[in-house]
Amino acid sequence: MTHATKNKEIFGESFLLESSKAENLYFGYAKDMPVIDYHNHLEPDVISGNRNFRSPTAIWLDGDHYKWRAMRNFGIEEKFISGNAGDEEKFRKWAETVPYTLRNPLFHWSHLELKNPFGITEYLSGNNSGAIYAKMDEALQSDTFRPQQLLQQFSVEALCTTDDPADSLEFHQTLKKSGCTIGVFPAFRPDAYIAFTDAEAYRKNIRKLEKTAGTGIRSASDLLEALQSRISYFHDHGARISDHGFEFFPDTTRWNGTLDHEFREFLNGDRALFSDPEALTGHLLKELCKMYAAKGWVQQFHIGATRNNNSGMLHRIGANTGYDAIGESYFAQRMSVMFDALNAEDRLAKSVIYTLNPTLNEVLATMAGNFNEEGIRGKIQFGAAWWFLDQLDGMEKQMNAVSNLGLISTFIGMLTDSRSFLSFSRHEYFRRLLCNMFGSEMERGLIPDDEKWVGRTIQDICYHNTKNYFGF
Amino acid sequence: MTHATKNKEIFGESFLLESSKAENLYFGYAKDMPVIDYHNHLEPDVISGNRNFRSPTAIWLDGDHYKWRAMRNFGIEEKFISGNAGDEEKFRKWAETVPYTLRNPLFHWSHLELKNPFGITEYLSGNNSGAIYAKMDEALQSDTFRPQQLLQQFSVEALCTTDDPADSLEFHQTLKKSGCTIGVFPAFRPDAYIAFTDAEAYRKNIRKLEKTAGTGIRSASDLLEALQSRISYFHDHGARISDHGFEFFPDTTRWNGTLDHEFREFLNGDRALFSDPEALTGHLLKELCKMYAAKGWVQQFHIGATRNNNSGMLHRIGANTGYDAIGESYFAQRMSVMFDALNAEDRLAKSVIYTLNPTLNEVLATMAGNFNEEGIRGKIQFGAAWWFLDQLDGMEKQMNAVSNLGLISTFIGMLTDSRSFLSFSRHEYFRRLLCNMFGSEMERGLIPDDEKWVGRTIQDICYHNTKNYFGF
Amino acid sequence: MTHATKNKEIFGESFLLESSKAENLYFGYAKDMPVIDYHNHLEPDVISGNRNFRSPTAIWLDGDHYKWRAMRNFGIEEKFISGNAGDEEKFRKWAETVPYTLRNPLFHWSHLELKNPFGITEYLSGNNSGAIYAKMDEALQSDTFRPQQLLQQFSVEALCTTDDPADSLEFHQTLKKSGCTIGVFPAFRPDAYIAFTDAEAYRKNIRKLEKTAGTGIRSASDLLEALQSRISYFHDHGARISDHGFEFFPDTTRWNGTLDHEFREFLNGDRALFSDPEALTGHLLKELCKMYAAKGWVQQFHIGATRNNNSGMLHRIGANTGYDAIGESYFAQRMSVMFDALNAEDRLAKSVIYTLNPTLNEVLATMAGNFNEEGIRGKIQFGAAWWFLDQLDGMEKQMNAVSNLGLISTFIGMLTDSRSFLSFSRHEYFRRLLCNMFGSEMERGLIPDDEKWVGRTIQDICYHNTKNYFGF
Repeated sequence: MTHATKNKEIFGESFLLESSKAENLYFGYAKDMPVIDYHNHLEPDVISGNRNFRSPTAIWLDGDHYKWRAMRNFGIEEKFISGNAGDEEKFRKWAETVPYTLRNPLFHWSHLELKNPFGITEYLSGNNSGAIYAKMDEALQSDTFRPQQLLQQFSVEALCTTDDPADSLEFHQTLKKSGCTIGVFPAFRPDAYIAFTDAEAYRKNIRKLEKTAGTGIRSASDLLEALQSRISYFHDHGARISDHGFEFFPDTTRWNGTLDHEFREFLNGDRALFSDPEALTGHLLKELCKMYAAKGWVQQFHIGATRNNNSGMLHRIGANTGYDAIGESYFAQRMSVMFDALNAEDRLAKSVIYTLNPTLNEVLATMAGNFNEEGIRGKIQFGAAWWFLDQLDGMEKQMNAVSNLGLISTFIGMLTDSRSFLSFSRHEYFRRLLCNMFGSEMERGLIPDDEKWVGRTIQDICYHNTKNYFGF
Repeated sequence: MTHATKNKEIFGESFLLESSKAENLYFGYAKDMPVIDYHNHLEPDVISGNRNFRSPTAIWLDGDHYKWRAMRNFGIEEKFISGNAGDEEKFRKWAETVPYTLRNPLFHWSHLELKNPFGITEYLSGNNSGAIYAKMDEALQSDTFRPQQLLQQFSVEALCTTDDPADSLEFHQTLKKSGCTIGVFPAFRPDAYIAFTDAEAYRKNIRKLEKTAGTGIRSASDLLEALQSRISYFHDHGARISDHGFEFFPDTTRWNGTLDHEFREFLNGDRALFSDPEALTGHLLKELCKMYAAKGWVQQFHIGATRNNNSGMLHRIGANTGYDAIGESYFAQRMSVMFDALNAEDRLAKSVIYTLNPTLNEVLATMAGNFNEEGIRGKIQFGAAWWFLDQLDGMEKQMNAVSNLGLISTFIGMLTDSRSFLSFSRHEYFRRLLCNMFGSEMERGLIPDDEKWVGRTIQDICYHNTKNYFGF
Repeated sequence: MTHATKNKEIFGESFLLESSKAENLYFGYAKDMPVIDYHNHLEPDVISGNRNFRSPTAIWLDGDHYKWRAMRNFGIEEKFISGNAGDEEKFRKWAETVPYTLRNPLFHWSHLELKNPFGITEYLSGNNSGAIYAKMDEALQSDTFRPQQLLQQFSVEALCTTDDPADSLEFHQTLKKSGCTIGVFPAFRPDAYIAFTDAEAYRKNIRKLEKTAGTGIRSASDLLEALQSRISYFHDHGARISDHGFEFFPDTTRWNGTLDHEFREFLNGDRALFSDPEALTGHLLKELCKMYAAKGWVQQFHIGATRNNNSGMLHRIGANTGYDAIGESYFAQRMSVMFDALNAEDRLAKSVIYTLNPTLNEVLATMAGNFNEEGIRGKIQFGAAWWFLDQLDGMEKQMNAVSNLGLISTFIGMLTDSRSFLSFSRHEYFRRLLCNMFGSEMERGLIPDDEKWVGRTIQDICYHNTKNYFGF
C-alpha cells in the first residue's frame, strides 16, 4: 500500500504524514514511545480518586476555554457555555459549532480526541450530536475510561501536575501508596506568593502559606524561608520542577533596603499598599531560582499572556474562562540579565522558557544559547509552542526557530499543559507533525535520507531527551 | 482537461489555483458571488458623474502610490511619476518598470487589471507600452468603461466610501436618486477632528465642522455634539460604518478636567497650543465609539502606519504620495482596555481591526476573541491584510492567524481600501487565494474532502458573512 | 536525466534546486557569476601574507562562534572549544557534534565547506573524524589552499574587509602592489570612536586615533575632523563603504551645547564620566553620514544584536565568542528620522540596513522605500539576512519581504560577513536558494515561465546590481 492511497484525513492512519518517509519515521520510531507529560494542570485528587466522569460534557467541555472561545465567537449564548444548561444541550451547542472550526486547531484536537480513546471516526456536527453523545457517554461509564486507565491507554509513563506551595500534596501521596504505576509528580508554582495586584488577596495568601509552612512571615526573607521549606517538602515528595507565569518579566535588579522595610510594614498591616510589587516579584524570583538550582530542579517560565481582558466576564465567571490573549510586551533582555547574574554565581538551574508571542521565537531561541553548561545537552530550552500557539503553525514555527538557531536534536519536545484527560492525543499530533517535518526534509534532500539516524533523533525528541533532562 | 494542463500563469484560468479541489471551490462557489466592498476611497462625485476617464494614466497611475513607490525604487525621475510629463510618457515609464516588479504584488495586480476589464493578456513592458496604451485608451472611451459600468462588470453589489463628517453627502444623494442599482454608502471618518499635530490646521477643521453642523464648538463636549449630529446625518443617508486611522492607538483613560479646561481655551484662541492632543484623541474616540454602538454601526480601526516619512516630498507633493511605511509601535493593550471599558457598559460596537504590522497578527487575532456577543458571529473582526500587506504573503498570514486563533468561517473577508476603479480584481485575487488555501488543505487531509461543506464556508467568507455583519 | 533522479542531498548537484526550472536558472545563469563579497571580516594581513593554514581546526573552527555555540549546546567541555585542547581533539569533538546539527544551518554550511574546496562528500561524525581531518590537513598543505588561491577558487572578484579608522591599511597596500588580481578594499568601521560604555577604554581609543590622524582631539568637532581625515585616507586607499553596528539605534536629535561642553571636559580628563553617550553617538553618526554622502560612499548599518550576554565568559575568553543573541529593541523610527533629515539636505548616502531581528523585516523593507533617488536603482537597501538569520528560513523571509514590499530585482544580494576563508560557499548556497525561489514560482505560475527574463534578474541579484551599486 503506497502513501497516496492511505487515508490522510484526520481519522486516517496517515494524518499529517505527507510522505512515506514521514510514515516510516512515525510508525517505526515515534508512535510507540512512552509519554512523559512534564507540565500539565491535571488535578491530583481526580487521578487519585479514579472515578468515572459524569458525562461527555464533564470530560470534554467543562472548563475547556479553547472550546468556549470558539463557541462565543460563533455567537452561542453563555448559558450553553459556562452556564446552567444541561450537559446534553451544551454538548449539542458545541457540536453545532464544530463544522465552523475548519482550519482552527480545535477541529483537529476534537476529532483526534473522538477517535482516541472513543473510537469515533465521524465529523461531529449538530446532525450526529445525539448519537455521538450517547456513544461517548456509554464508554465513559466503563472501567477503562477512568482517569488512570485513560492515562495508561495513552502510554503515559510520568506526568507533572502544577501545585500551590501551600498544597499538602496528600493526593500525590495517596496515589503513590496505591501502587499506581504511572509516575505522578508535583510541580512547584509559587505565583500567588510572589506577584500581586490585589493587596488584600495577597495578604490572605501569605496567611495561608504561614499556616502550611508553620512559620510567621513578616518580611521578604521570612517569605523566602517559608518557600524554601515548601521546596524541600515538595522535593521530598518527588517534585523536580518549578513553574512561573508572568505577563511581564519582572526587573530582578531593583530590590533595595527601603523596599524591604516598606514590604515589612505592608505585611504587618502597618501600610495598606506596597509601592513596587514588580521589584518584589523580581527579588523573590531570583532568590527562588537559586533554591531551584541548589536542588537540581528544572525551572519553567511561561511568559507573554495578557489575562482577564474582559473584566465583566471576570467578575461573572472568574479567571481562566477564555478571556486571555497574547500580550505585546517584550521580556528577553530582563530574563537574560537574571540568567547572567545567576550563571555568574553557578546558580542557574536548567530552564525551560515558553513564550505566548511568536514574534519572540527567534529572540528566545538565541538567548537560550548563551547559558549552556558542560555535560548538559540543551541546558536552557526554548520550550514547546504554548497555549494559543499549540497548533500546526505555532509548533512548526517554534521547532523551526529551535532548529535554525539551536539544536533541535537536544529539544525536550511536547507537553500538554492541559486540564483534560483527553489531551494526551496532542502527543500523537506532535509526533506526527515532527515526523512529517523531518520526513519532508529527507525527501527534499535537506537532511540525510538515513532513517536510523533521523529516527534516533525523533526518539530523542519524543522521549529520551526529556527523560535525561528531568532525570525521571 | 486536468489541472496540470491548464494555464496557471496570471492570464490563465487557474492562476493561483494549485489543485483541482481549489479550482472546484473557485469556479463552483466563489467566482460568481457578488462583491460587497465595505471600505474604499472611491470618490462619490466620480461615481455619480459617471464620466469616461481621461486616459489609461488617469485611471491606472494617477495617485497610485503603490506604483509610484516601485517607479522610484527603480530610479525613475519624479516628473514621470507625480510630475508634469504627459500621460503616454508616464505610462511608458511605468511599463518599463513592470518587468522589474517580479515577485512584487504589483506584478500580479497590474496584469490582473489589464486582463480584467481590458482583456489584455500580455505582460506589459517598454516594448509593448505604446500598443497597450492605445488599446486601453480606446476601451476607456467606450460607455462600458465608465465608473458605474465598471462597478457592474465587477459584480459590485454595494460599496462604502470614506467621508469627512463635514461632507454634505450630496453625491451619495444624487446617486441614489439617479436609480443606480449599486448600493453606494457613505462611511464616517472623523480623523481630522479628533487628532492633530498642527494646531492652526486643526482649528480650521473645527471651523469647517461648526459650519456644517450649524453649532458653535467651544469645548470637547460641543465637539462631540457636533459629531453626534453628523453621525445622525450620515445614518440618515445610509451610513452604517465609521473608520479611524492611527499611527499610535491613543490612551483613552487620560482625559480630565484640567485638560478639558485647557482645550476650551485652545479652541477659543486663548492659548496657542494644546498640551496633550493624544489624551484628547483618546477621549473623543471613546465617546464616538459609544455613539456608533448606539446607532448599531460597525467601527473600523486602521492602525500601524507611519506616515509622511520623507518631509521634503511631503512639502513638495503632499500626503498619500508613497512615503509611508509600516510602523513599529504596539497598540493592542490600549485597544483592549478601551474595548473592555465599552463592553462593560454594553456599548462596544461591532469592530474591525486592521494592522499594518504583521508581527501583531497573533496578538490581535487573540484580542478579538475576548469581546464576543451572544447571537453575533465574529463580533470583533481581525480585518483583512491591509495596504502593504494586501498581497499573497500578507493575506495568507492574516488568514492563518484568523484560522488558528479564531474562526475563519466567521471572517468577513475582502475589501479593496482602494482609490481605483480597477482594484476590484483584488476580490478575484482574494477568492482565488482563499480557495487555494482551503483546496490545498483538502488535498492534504487537514480539512474534510467535502466540497459542499467547504464551499459553503467559502461563500460565507466571500459574501454572506459580510452581508449579515453589516446588514446591507 | 530528469530532476527527480538527480541527487538532491547536500553533496549532490541539485541540492536546494527543487525543480528543473530552478536547475536551469542555477546552472544556466547563477553558478558562474563572479563573487563580490562586499562585507566581511577577513584579515588583510592573512590575505596579504598568503601562508598555508596550520590545520583544519585553524581554518575551520578557530574563532567560529557559530560552531562553538552548537558544541556548547551539545554539552561539550569548553577546553575543546576555545580552550587548550589539541587541534585534532577539538576537531573530533566538533565531528561528534555534527550529526546532532540536523536542521541547523551548520549542517549545511559545514558539509558544503567539506565538499568545496576539499572535495569531501561524506557526512562528518565521530566515526570518520580522523580520516577527514587527515584529508583536510593534507589539502591545506598544498599551494592551492592558501588564502588567495582559495579566493580565486571561489571566483571572488572583489571583497571588502572591515577596518578600524586608525588602521594604516598597510596590508591593503602591500596586496595591491603585489599584483593580486582580486580587488581587496578596506571599509570604514568607526564604532570604537563613536559609541562606548567604558569611559577609560574609550579615551584610550581616542588617543590611538589622535596618533594616526596626527591631530589633537579635544572636542566632538576635533573628533569629527580626525575621522574626516581618516575617511579621506581610506578613500584614497580604495574604500567606498562604511559600516556601523548598534544594539540600539541612537537618537540623532539630542545633541546640544551643554553636552558638547561636557564632552570636551570628559575628553580632557576634567570629568570622569560623560552623561549621555547615546546622544554623542547619534551626533557623530549623523555627521559621519554626511561625510560618506560627500564621498559618494555606501553606508551600512548592522542593527539588532544584543552582545556579551554571558558576562562570565566575556571575562574569561572575550567578545565575539558565541554569547550574543537577537535583541528585542525597535529602531526603525529613529533611523527614519535621521534618513529624513539627511535626505532633506541632499546628504543621504546609499545605505544598506541589516537587522538581526526578523520581526523588523517588514518595517525596514517599507522604510527603505521612502528615500529613493532619481537614477539609482534601490538606493536604500534592506540588506541580506544577517548572522543568526543567514540560513534558509531567514534568507527566504528577508527575500520575501524585499520582494513583497520593494523590488527584489534591484536587490544587491549576498555577502558573507564572515571571518573564514571557507565561507564563500555561502554564495553558492544563496544562489541555489535564490534560483529555487524563482524557479518554484515559475512552476506555480506566479511569475512568467520565461527563463531569459528571470535569468537576467537572477544575474542582476547575484552580480550586476552589486557592481553597479558600489561602482567597483
